[in-house]
Amino acid sequence: MIYPRAAVIGIGLIGGSFALAAKRAGAVGHIVGVARSRATRQAALEVGAADEVTGDAAEAAANADLVYVATPVGAMPGIFQQISPTLSPNVLVTDAGSTKAEVVAAARDLLPPEVTFIGGHPLAGSEQTGPRAARADLFAGHSYFLTPDEQDNTDDLNDLVELVKALGALPVLTSPQRHDQIVAATSHLPHVVAAALANAVGETVGDEEKIEDFMGTGFVDTTRLAAGSPQLWRDIFVTNREYVSQTISALSEQLQRWGQALSRSDAEQIEELLEEARRWREKLR
Amino acid sequence: MIYPRAAVIGIGLIGGSFALAAKRAGAVGHIVGVARSRATRQAALEVGAADEVTGDAAEAAANADLVYVATPVGAMPGIFQQISPTLSPNVLVTDAGSTKAEVVAAARDLLPPEVTFIGGHPLAGSEQTGPRAARADLFAGHSYFLTPDEQDNTDDLNDLVELVKALGALPVLTSPQRHDQIVAATSHLPHVVAAALANAVGETVGDEEKIEDFMGTGFVDTTRLAAGSPQLWRDIFVTNREYVSQTISALSEQLQRWGQALSRSDAEQIEELLEEARRWREKLR
Repeated sequence: MIYPRAAVIGIGLIGGSFALAAKRAGAVGHIVGVARSRATRQAALEVGAADEVTGDAAEAAANADLVYVATPVGAMPGIFQQISPTLSPNVLVTDAGSTKAEVVAAARDLLPPEVTFIGGHPLAGSEQTGPRAARADLFAGHSYFLTPDEQDNTDDLNDLVELVKALGALPVLTSPQRHDQIVAATSHLPHVVAAALANAVGETVGDEEKIEDFMGTGFVDTTRLAAGSPQLWRDIFVTNREYVSQTISALSEQLQRWGQALSRSDAEQIEELLEEARRWREKLR
Repeated sequence: MIYPRAAVIGIGLIGGSFALAAKRAGAVGHIVGVARSRATRQAALEVGAADEVTGDAAEAAANADLVYVATPVGAMPGIFQQISPTLSPNVLVTDAGSTKAEVVAAARDLLPPEVTFIGGHPLAGSEQTGPRAARADLFAGHSYFLTPDEQDNTDDLNDLVELVKALGALPVLTSPQRHDQIVAATSHLPHVVAAALANAVGETVGDEEKIEDFMGTGFVDTTRLAAGSPQLWRDIFVTNREYVSQTISALSEQLQRWGQALSRSDAEQIEELLEEARRWREKLR
């Protein structure tokens, strides 16, 4: 056992999956689940993700050896402020947010200096939400980013790496900035694209009579990400706005190339754009 | 049996699936499969999609009651010219192209006036190609667009509708223009988006060290269409360039809204864009 007592603040899909996986692996003993909604707390108990539940993050964190923050990233600074007075000096605090630079900076500002915070991001998820969608194998086989500072306690980092491995995930150490820059392209831009596509199709032909006859699997797959939680993703975009803006510019440039090729009926250029896309996808997937 | 003898010109994924489904339903008797490549012809025989094969479209069409053209749309005008001299007057010619206005116009120009041509488009497909990927149930449960002219022979249309039903597909009658305008948004724009996304991500971070650690299912799903055949899709885009350009403009406008919301850190506007996208997707999928 690495952490006898853990507090999981935000025990939804990610927090719940973490709890189930950590308990199954025997890496964590007692888990206190924190959620604002009574229904979420009840569900967390029912699916076995928490041994006890509370709505009070500070109380849950008070005796914890590990605090795992899995709320939307926009709520994290507030959580850090709440738990800061009650943390024990030996606690390790980590998070599961999809952006890292702002979260790490907030933790450094708001947590006591003697407490170690190491940012984390499991590259896994689902369009479902809440503890009832949690699965002990959600992280299995996926990358799990950790963004330690140079000055972080090595023992703490080693323990956290062991914990990530116990979840079945693959620890990837990187800097918060490099993380945010790359996931802006690989994860956040696909989400923007899915949402922009759904809105563009909806606004141009969504009210056509019998539009359902025209909908194929291509639209459904390409917009799958647009089914995700707007609140969760809003925070991701706001906290990674600069890198995401850059990737949107790169995409807009691609669309301009398409527009030019189409206006010239340039079949060769269109085929080249398609060939290039196929090669990148084959390399990256 | 509706058509004793059929020629399927371009006996790949779509032509082969048509042949398998039509034969299984007993709607078509003898099938001559046409392909330029010897390997494709051999595969069509082996999977049972054709009773005989040839590389000569005119020869295959000569004694046919039904000519089913399933080549890329860019090749169709050439096919119409080739088969025009050998067609019998009672033949029905149809196609499976993903765009309809240019194909229907070419057929009207290039086929003999006494021959009925009715454009078709099965809304089904796969990223795989060739007769070995063909499936008798590929069209089952999917829309199958037919774009008859006012002056088309009613019996011919009724026969074709019966044939489409025999494939297990759902006949949808519409005009070539309305078809092209709507699929530009629902089918062709998702393809542009998938390709543009793959290229934008590739060009911005594709050569990063250990980029594979950062790739999640979101990218893979959102770019799935980019795995499709560049030649096939090049033709679709060229023949539907005006409507596709319009949808690309609509998408670019959406991306501008994203860019503005991000530059203002406007969380409310971002959430609204995401909420709207979720609603459209729920309605349209």
